[in-house]
Amino acid sequence: MDFDTPVERRGTHSAKWDMMERVYGVSPEDGIPMWVADMDFRPPQAVQEALAEMQEVGIYGYFGGDAAYRAAIGWWMETRHGWSLDPEWIATTHGLVNGVGVALDAFTEAGDAVVLFTPVYHAFARTIIAADRTVTELPMVQQDGRYVMEFDESRLTGRERMLILCSPHNPGGRVWTRDELEEVAEFARRHDLILVSDEIHHDLLMPGQRHVPMALIEGVEDRLVMLTSTSKTFNIAGAHTGNVIIPDDALRARFAKRLSALGLSPNSFGLHMATAAYSPGGAEWLDALIPYLDGNRKILDAAIAAIPGARSMPLESTYLGWADFTGTGMEEAEVMRRIEQDARIAVNHGSTFGTGGAGFARFNFATPRARVEAAAERLKEAFGDLQ
Amino acid sequence: MDFDTPVERRGTHSAKWDMMERVYGVSPEDGIPMWVADMDFRPPQAVQEALAEMQEVGIYGYFGGDAAYRAAIGWWMETRHGWSLDPEWIATTHGLVNGVGVALDAFTEAGDAVVLFTPVYHAFARTIIAADRTVTELPMVQQDGRYVMEFDESRLTGRERMLILCSPHNPGGRVWTRDELEEVAEFARRHDLILVSDEIHHDLLMPGQRHVPMALIEGVEDRLVMLTSTSKTFNIAGAHTGNVIIPDDALRARFAKRLSALGLSPNSFGLHMATAAYSPGGAEWLDALIPYLDGNRKILDAAIAAIPGARSMPLESTYLGWADFTGTGMEEAEVMRRIEQDARIAVNHGSTFGTGGAGFARFNFATPRARVEAAAERLKEAFGDLQ
Repeated sequence: MDFDTPVERRGTHSAKWDMMERVYGVSPEDGIPMWVADMDFRPPQAVQEALAEMQEVGIYGYFGGDAAYRAAIGWWMETRHGWSLDPEWIATTHGLVNGVGVALDAFTEAGDAVVLFTPVYHAFARTIIAADRTVTELPMVQQDGRYVMEFDESRLTGRERMLILCSPHNPGGRVWTRDELEEVAEFARRHDLILVSDEIHHDLLMPGQRHVPMALIEGVEDRLVMLTSTSKTFNIAGAHTGNVIIPDDALRARFAKRLSALGLSPNSFGLHMATAAYSPGGAEWLDALIPYLDGNRKILDAAIAAIPGARSMPLESTYLGWADFTGTGMEEAEVMRRIEQDARIAVNHGSTFGTGGAGFARFNFATPRARVEAAAERLKEAFGDLQ
Repeated sequence: MDFDTPVERRGTHSAKWDMMERVYGVSPEDGIPMWVADMDFRPPQAVQEALAEMQEVGIYGYFGGDAAYRAAIGWWMETRHGWSLDPEWIATTHGLVNGVGVALDAFTEAGDAVVLFTPVYHAFARTIIAADRTVTELPMVQQDGRYVMEFDESRLTGRERMLILCSPHNPGGRVWTRDELEEVAEFARRHDLILVSDEIHHDLLMPGQRHVPMALIEGVEDRLVMLTSTSKTFNIAGAHTGNVIIPDDALRARFAKRLSALGLSPNSFGLHMATAAYSPGGAEWLDALIPYLDGNRKILDAAIAAIPGARSMPLESTYLGWADFTGTGMEEAEVMRRIEQDARIAVNHGSTFGTGGAGFARFNFATPRARVEAAAERLKEAFGDLQ
């Protein structure tokens, strides 16, 4: 479990490394990619071994028999999250954005609206709009410097049929408390919304944090669609494999029918890797990763805090720092110019996350520490005139 | 390029091997799986090397930059099929059944009908029906012992919006002539049907055969959706990667919008493997595979021909023998009982392919020759009383 030694990812068809010049004008020569949400770390040894075994057989035909995969998910949720689920509740999608897309397709109609607490992961709105649905934004507010949800019912149009919660929240990294989740549940019930709970970051908790799966909140089982995956936790997003867990029989049947109508069945690489990752070896790797990420976080936070008017939101989860530059008095464009052109760092622009995101930047610090230190140094220089 | 040495696939999550007992009651102990359409051969060395390179890097994050993949498809189509395509016409789906599903979703409505020439690949009807569309069957007829399409317009309901052609045809293995394809095109125009041409088997041609891509037929470019893939040709179906090639701008935009709404983007394993496969090394492997398959075909055909009343359709393409047992006077159930219980061979039942399929069995002979010889021997015994 070596997180320090850099792995050369340039020229490997890595979106994060090989697309940053095209998207941001930041050269991979000496640029630091802190945008796309994958990590510059190799996954657990168990995952590498599963792939090596596939290669040893050397035939990559149709996959059959996902009982071990389902059992591994069950074991992981029980062991890590205190949640006992029925393996029959699990559907497999081609990644979690695909899970969101099929849920939209199965449970809403064109013209319906979907509630998002913004700023939030940009792919939600993109998918909703491509599906000819609309987004109803409920902008979060800050309390003690952290996001809290505001259930502002005056923003509802009456066309809302679904709520997508990001739990833990990306960006900002909130780990929602049980009380907050109960409020979400109550809100979903009151407005009869399908409750999609995207828990893709639920394993990436900063030390001391405790995540509550939405399935453990009472009174949501008839409307709940849980999304989880090994993709973020174990850094295997390229395999595009997501778990969609639906306790309600009727909802699950509707979802399964759409999967069938869309001809979707999982790829063998994702299933082999996911099964291997949800294991004691995977857990051990993750337990070593967390303090490393926390160490990186502190370096980045200190660098942001050193810029007058800038601050990081205190991160409870994810490896995605959320830095507020609004206090610098600069326009977002100028902040980004300094980060990209002066510091040669590619980051996600806050405004792409919806209302409330403008003036923020999202920094992915899941990279070897020396690179985070270099980024910190470059930020210091790029904003040095503000001192 | 060793096709003779058997590879142990039992216990590797192979649908073909590990599901045959559950589906057919044929034990993998000594059963011979000749059903699921993948091959018991390793793919070209170039594909194995692409995977080995991925493993050497060892990080499986988001894929970026598919220009090489698109160029490889273009090169292959030009070199092997005499078709120059614009790389911008290509969309990537999670396998070809997914390509069919998204095409149905993009270009038809619930209640619409889709034309199929039956018997045909069972996943088409399954997907159409799951999507709340209906199937309009145009049963093929036999001429000189081979299938030909019959454009029986009295079978149309007026609700037809799409035609899915299997070219080459599965099962039966017909490689449609230019004249036949022109008839299909004329039929599609006359009834204003979107023409989905599934050409997944177009590389697996028996010696002397020549495939004509539907895109080379005049007057279809405004309604054509071509489906191709490396999955069958190079035996990498587990990676679930299909190419959907749409020359018409408006149709392509509709398809792309649905992909986006469904949150579908390709997995990195499939793209790396497909790019490697569409290469001179892949071509060389394929050119060695074809005569091997042809040799296997002859052994199977002889075994079927030795059963009084049974015959194989002369195969022009695919590795899927299509054997007609109707002349034996036995019910399909009895034929299958003998094949499965007596000969311990798992095959696809003809009736699952739609009207015209009853009494047939589909034998996948893409397996080491010794296993085809063993199957031939067992068939001889299982039907020995008919001599």
